[in-house]
Amino acid sequence: MKNPIQNLNKAFENKVRLGVMAALMVNSRLSFNELKDLLELTDGNLASHIKALEKEKFISVNKTFVGKKPNTTYAVTSSGSKAFELHLKALEDLIKNQNITNK
Amino acid sequence: MKNPIQNLNKAFENKVRLGVMAALMVNSRLSFNELKDLLELTDGNLASHIKALEKEKFISVNKTFVGKKPNTTYAVTSSGSKAFELHLKALEDLIKNQNITNK
Repeated sequence: MKNPIQNLNKAFENKVRLGVMAALMVNSRLSFNELKDLLELTDGNLASHIKALEKEKFISVNKTFVGKKPNTTYAVTSSGSKAFELHLKALEDLIKNQNITNK
Repeated sequence: MKNPIQNLNKAFENKVRLGVMAALMVNSRLSFNELKDLLELTDGNLASHIKALEKEKFISVNKTFVGKKPNTTYAVTSSGSKAFELHLKALEDLIKNQNITNK
């Protein structure tokens, strides 16, 4: 049996980060509040994981104004997209290996 | 978009625990060293996550002797199997949602 967790990326281990990346992979841009509502999180919880993903340069921040109101949105970077796809592939292989054996 | 991380189980978030459960789901029993070699881990790292899974009653411990040598093996419990399958299903849905949108 091959090591099923070899290609899993520690940066995406936490389910909040998994959720943020999954959401941003299927939406070009999302605001902080859109992510917070979708993933049903507190401000603090979401903010800490967004910061971690930013630090890894897996997501980028865009700060604009809507009228006088600041509007911060996030998007996946190309390196983030590649790294996340590898992570999903490793998860998919792990799941496939379970299904094959359970048949 | 439905909350993609709603049904993910925090107990299986860490990739070591994901690996231990995945390995024990497709092997009736495995020893500490078999798990350690398969997942390429240190004793301490594996021991702490096995303890956490035991505490949740997702795995059970079996202590026997081979000759005079202690032989400790682990197996998934029925509640562990059910919980892990739900977790894998949630991961599968998250991945499917990515693939549908990327087509």
